[in-house]
Amino acid sequence: MNTNSGVESLGRRLRLGVVGGGPGSFIGSVHRSAALMSEKYEIVAAVLSSNPERSISAAAELGIPRSYRSAREMIESEAALVEGIDIISIMTPNDSHYEIACQALEAGMHVICEKPLTTHYHQAKSLEARAEKSGLHFCVAYAYTGYPMVRQAKAMVEAGDLGEIRMVQCNYVQGHLAEISETERSGKNWHMLPDIAGDDLVVADIGTHCYHLCSFVTGALPEQLSADSCTTVPGRKATDYASIQLRYCSGARGSLWITQAAAGAEHGLYLRVFGSKGGIEWHQEYPNELLFRSLGRPAQLFTKGGPGLYDIANQATAVPLGHPEGYREAFATLYNDFANAVINTIKTTQQLQASPYPHIKDGVQGVRFIEAAFESNRGNGMWVDIEPKITACY
Amino acid sequence: MNTNSGVESLGRRLRLGVVGGGPGSFIGSVHRSAALMSEKYEIVAAVLSSNPERSISAAAELGIPRSYRSAREMIESEAALVEGIDIISIMTPNDSHYEIACQALEAGMHVICEKPLTTHYHQAKSLEARAEKSGLHFCVAYAYTGYPMVRQAKAMVEAGDLGEIRMVQCNYVQGHLAEISETERSGKNWHMLPDIAGDDLVVADIGTHCYHLCSFVTGALPEQLSADSCTTVPGRKATDYASIQLRYCSGARGSLWITQAAAGAEHGLYLRVFGSKGGIEWHQEYPNELLFRSLGRPAQLFTKGGPGLYDIANQATAVPLGHPEGYREAFATLYNDFANAVINTIKTTQQLQASPYPHIKDGVQGVRFIEAAFESNRGNGMWVDIEPKITACY
Amino acid sequence: MNTNSGVESLGRRLRLGVVGGGPGSFIGSVHRSAALMSEKYEIVAAVLSSNPERSISAAAELGIPRSYRSAREMIESEAALVEGIDIISIMTPNDSHYEIACQALEAGMHVICEKPLTTHYHQAKSLEARAEKSGLHFCVAYAYTGYPMVRQAKAMVEAGDLGEIRMVQCNYVQGHLAEISETERSGKNWHMLPDIAGDDLVVADIGTHCYHLCSFVTGALPEQLSADSCTTVPGRKATDYASIQLRYCSGARGSLWITQAAAGAEHGLYLRVFGSKGGIEWHQEYPNELLFRSLGRPAQLFTKGGPGLYDIANQATAVPLGHPEGYREAFATLYNDFANAVINTIKTTQQLQASPYPHIKDGVQGVRFIEAAFESNRGNGMWVDIEPKITACY
Amino acid sequence: MNTNSGVESLGRRLRLGVVGGGPGSFIGSVHRSAALMSEKYEIVAAVLSSNPERSISAAAELGIPRSYRSAREMIESEAALVEGIDIISIMTPNDSHYEIACQALEAGMHVICEKPLTTHYHQAKSLEARAEKSGLHFCVAYAYTGYPMVRQAKAMVEAGDLGEIRMVQCNYVQGHLAEISETERSGKNWHMLPDIAGDDLVVADIGTHCYHLCSFVTGALPEQLSADSCTTVPGRKATDYASIQLRYCSGARGSLWITQAAAGAEHGLYLRVFGSKGGIEWHQEYPNELLFRSLGRPAQLFTKGGPGLYDIANQATAVPLGHPEGYREAFATLYNDFANAVINTIKTTQQLQASPYPHIKDGVQGVRFIEAAFESNRGNGMWVDIEPKITACY
Repeated sequence: MNTNSGVESLGRRLRLGVVGGGPGSFIGSVHRSAALMSEKYEIVAAVLSSNPERSISAAAELGIPRSYRSAREMIESEAALVEGIDIISIMTPNDSHYEIACQALEAGMHVICEKPLTTHYHQAKSLEARAEKSGLHFCVAYAYTGYPMVRQAKAMVEAGDLGEIRMVQCNYVQGHLAEISETERSGKNWHMLPDIAGDDLVVADIGTHCYHLCSFVTGALPEQLSADSCTTVPGRKATDYASIQLRYCSGARGSLWITQAAAGAEHGLYLRVFGSKGGIEWHQEYPNELLFRSLGRPAQLFTKGGPGLYDIANQATAVPLGHPEGYREAFATLYNDFANAVINTIKTTQQLQASPYPHIKDGVQGVRFIEAAFESNRGNGMWVDIEPKITACY
Repeated sequence: MNTNSGVESLGRRLRLGVVGGGPGSFIGSVHRSAALMSEKYEIVAAVLSSNPERSISAAAELGIPRSYRSAREMIESEAALVEGIDIISIMTPNDSHYEIACQALEAGMHVICEKPLTTHYHQAKSLEARAEKSGLHFCVAYAYTGYPMVRQAKAMVEAGDLGEIRMVQCNYVQGHLAEISETERSGKNWHMLPDIAGDDLVVADIGTHCYHLCSFVTGALPEQLSADSCTTVPGRKATDYASIQLRYCSGARGSLWITQAAAGAEHGLYLRVFGSKGGIEWHQEYPNELLFRSLGRPAQLFTKGGPGLYDIANQATAVPLGHPEGYREAFATLYNDFANAVINTIKTTQQLQASPYPHIKDGVQGVRFIEAAFESNRGNGMWVDIEPKITACY
Repeated sequence: MNTNSGVESLGRRLRLGVVGGGPGSFIGSVHRSAALMSEKYEIVAAVLSSNPERSISAAAELGIPRSYRSAREMIESEAALVEGIDIISIMTPNDSHYEIACQALEAGMHVICEKPLTTHYHQAKSLEARAEKSGLHFCVAYAYTGYPMVRQAKAMVEAGDLGEIRMVQCNYVQGHLAEISETERSGKNWHMLPDIAGDDLVVADIGTHCYHLCSFVTGALPEQLSADSCTTVPGRKATDYASIQLRYCSGARGSLWITQAAAGAEHGLYLRVFGSKGGIEWHQEYPNELLFRSLGRPAQLFTKGGPGLYDIANQATAVPLGHPEGYREAFATLYNDFANAVINTIKTTQQLQASPYPHIKDGVQGVRFIEAAFESNRGNGMWVDIEPKITACY
Repeated sequence: MNTNSGVESLGRRLRLGVVGGGPGSFIGSVHRSAALMSEKYEIVAAVLSSNPERSISAAAELGIPRSYRSAREMIESEAALVEGIDIISIMTPNDSHYEIACQALEAGMHVICEKPLTTHYHQAKSLEARAEKSGLHFCVAYAYTGYPMVRQAKAMVEAGDLGEIRMVQCNYVQGHLAEISETERSGKNWHMLPDIAGDDLVVADIGTHCYHLCSFVTGALPEQLSADSCTTVPGRKATDYASIQLRYCSGARGSLWITQAAAGAEHGLYLRVFGSKGGIEWHQEYPNELLFRSLGRPAQLFTKGGPGLYDIANQATAVPLGHPEGYREAFATLYNDFANAVINTIKTTQQLQASPYPHIKDGVQGVRFIEAAFESNRGNGMWVDIEPKITACY
């Protein structure tokens, strides 16, 4: 069960400030409710809009005590308070992550940042260096890794239950961009604007989730990729479809099939990993189950909270067997992990043990992945080396 | 989406006090996180244990500002504060609900109470009368009615999509009592003690959920029932199995099949309703889907957040299509509905519109159902009239 | 795999004659194709209609060499031939089974007969006595027992994998009688006529399948039942809904929920059996899977042709893992079992080993079950003893 | 329902001869039982082994009247008989298809042939020319197209229910070659020998099924492909994994992910097609269902035999709603279609109407696909033009 895992209580809740995610934003309420439901945070400060007035009024509406007109104002003001925020959560448009995160680190705040980490690889590397130097915690919100059964899958691979990994497939098949909406047409949806969201949008927006999920579960990074991205909806400028092939130095293969233009589809995040001894299968829409097939034995259906799970899965579980947990619970697990890590840092001078939240290095890998896919696609699907520095054979 | 639905913001969060649900309790953290994730409550007071010292220390651990040694102390003290609690949530053993709820109503607090409402029908009726007189809100935590697809099912029946209702089946097949645990053996699990939890325990504990779910979705109450309860695990005193047949005055039939002793089973809450034109099917383990079969047309698979839903389903939805919501979200919907109703009462002098949270009358009906099932079972399954006052033909 | 299981080939195909199941009949082509696909039968004679002319023309249409104007004519004529039929398959209206089967046994023919065996218990007992005396094989077409995963379930119970059986539930929820059809209204559908099909039609038609399935899988017969049958579709005379409770002498409980009037439903045959150690779950619509949940271990998903099955399941399997088998394959397994048994009888003088096809005693039990349910329902659901002679404690 | 569809009966069964598929072969009994269960064939001649003695004894064992020592002998002898075979079914190793099929066509026999049609493209083209000249029917056994719901999918695309096709994904994920078996190691499994089975074995063996399924359902052929094939099991010579990308001239994209080395996997044939208005999803393991998602409306779950299907789906259906049909039924549908086409040719001199069985041109396309994939893989996944002659834009 989702507990402090040996971390002593701080005797108070952590103070969180949020930037972005104001009225009308889906991800804003997800971050806030995830923090709140973990019972470890209070949200004391916010910048809920790039429009200063709306930022103030939205915070009042939500009963958040302190609100600011800009991220910079919040960071500076809170840093000056005795009981200022411990942690900042950044959920602004992609191209603004870098600057805000730099300021927060400088002000000594721990950071939770939406993906993709930045829109340029050099920024991602710079941010990684700053975070390392600061000794502060930095989480990239790859929320799917918070699902108990995703953690179970990772633990099974680590324990060798699947044997040597031979193939990975991750599908992410959404339908909400099957038509061009008014906000897209009028240029008001920043997710569809390369200048703000980054090159090869479908890869930046959801491809990074697939890439990280594969890395998280298999514990390995591919050394080469080949990408075929395109736009399937007539009249659209951004990409909405990509098929990406991965080669691992072990000889293993990976395949990502991602789109946001599959008319009628919902979320469609589906992961399969096969090794020499067996394979797992996980559907985000049915997140509380993990099917494990293995050579010579009947398939096993693992269930969140059920028998036979590894500790890492149980630690990410908040309610017992048979009580479904969903997307916000996965998010809450990241916030819970992060809180435990921060509390530990506040209370002790000891070296932190590894925490299962996604770290800044995962965010850096994601940005490099986007760049490599863009390069391959420009080369008509040629195989591109992924940065050797971040590749390790398993 | 899960919004204020036209209710204006109060400009502050509602102040909640909780009684029960301390360390080790599953339902305690469910209530608290449900309240918090709705972003409409702050938890300011608590009695987290019947042991005064543990109550104080547990509240400190959770960062709850004010803690008390008993429910009575909390109610009296908070009533005296200018910024005392608006609402009390009761999740203590069943036989204590009546007294605490009476005190809270007298102190002018709105009440959220766990099911079953009381352990005796006369108490339930008395509480109903007091609540009506007080003009305060009183919610019974039949949490499954908070799932968007359960509300969709209700709306479909109301709209006539299923035609005249002809048959209902509700299964609740759990496995956690398939063996006698140490706490049961030593008498420390109050859920297994008739004096505290009520007669015919499997009916009181989960049968009431089935009964309410059938009533909520069909909008009808049966006039007669026949029950076959028993104990299937050797050495146990409490019942752990019941099959209950229902007869509606319309001629429709219902059937409940409930147990907590199905070895290996998880939650197993499964509802089917068929009418003259079609039928629906819902599994709590896959709560975001509702299958609708109808005469002469392909089956439709409704999905939380997806196309074609009635407003009542969308209003109970917090995150978009494809992002699973679970048990705590269903609970949070009850808390959200309740907050909207209370805010409206605080801000206006107008008559309240109907709120979809389960009301005290639903709790009273549940207690009568338990009594009737007990009576039928004692009569070897004879058909028993359910209190005419609470029965209405549809 | 579906083989001769050690039975030597006869060097020729068995000669089959069919009675009933002519043009427009669903079950006729099912029987014939099941026999043919086993590669052990040739269909050499037929009475395909009670109308002599249509019987002759239908057989010609199907390329069946010999056709007759009545069952009696076929039996007498074939008995006189050197290469006459070995086996007769009876799929005529229920009230005619008895007479045709008697004649066939007298003529020395092995019999495959549709369920229910007869419309009266005394006829069933009489037929059982005649069959035993004859030394001939007699199969009652409870086809669902031919599914590999149903056999696996039976084997698991026998092996003790579920522990002591504590509860059984079988649902059979069809929708094809949700409205009154023209043939029903005009009295042309014999399935809806009590004089021909038997009392309490929904129980006779599909309830018997549930009852036999429970008996087959658990290896036990209940000692008492309580039935609540009724008609849910206004204007219908036959029953179309029944909820039946079972009590076993071990203390175990059973529950059948059956209807043909669930608008929009398909076949809905669903079996669950729970014991002290675990439980199984099987859906006829997804017949190639069997879910096994057990205490303290992850659920196992057994698959037709997959790892970890008992021999009896593999022997009922015709095509490898991943190639779905359906309803006609289950039927073909009965025909295959029956062929093996008949071939063994023809070739050897040895005592037959037990064959897994459903025997006449199963048919007799089914007829008694129908009578007992009728009696209970007439007594407003009173508990009725099922014939002690056919009840055995387990 | 699976009927003659307006084709008059021949008054006799069609006479079938089979080559290959002897004892121990899985596909042999599938072909024979498929033919028999359609009630339109009798199997009168066979060559069941390349070993003449075993061929004779196996036929006797199965009760097949005439057996031969070689395909050539069967073809010549049967051609000389007044009541010789009408049709030959070829299920021998891939490299022998060409010669046997040529002989059969010369002898005036209609042909059913296993896939891949041949091991070389020039042979495939030659065979196509001979078949066209002969006026005889020639079916390539792409059996998955016989499933009613696959035909429904095709009909939906044709009717425009999905709008313009934008993306297709077909997965075929088997596990039976996750380890190297003794027969593979010793070179006795011809499926693993390139000389006999063809280059790039995983593509030849199951990739062709995916390719044809995509073509059948979408009605379109891609113009370019890029293939990444490899061997994932150490020590194996044949390929066991391939990821193939397709580009259609419309701009649509396709992706095939195929393997036989996914440890623990079963059959894993899974098809998704999305267009501008909606998409379909079909799993071979659950063949009787087809999920249709569409823009702005709830998903529809089509079921074999259920409401709302196109005629082509119903014509491929043999038993009613709720009675599962499986792999052999899909095969039987091909045999039934073929029988209807042959009967029509025998009885009339009119031009044949299009029959839904897969024709020789489909087999030719499959062979070209194998060659193109081989070429692309040799070029490290370069995009290769598929033969322009067989490509048509849609």
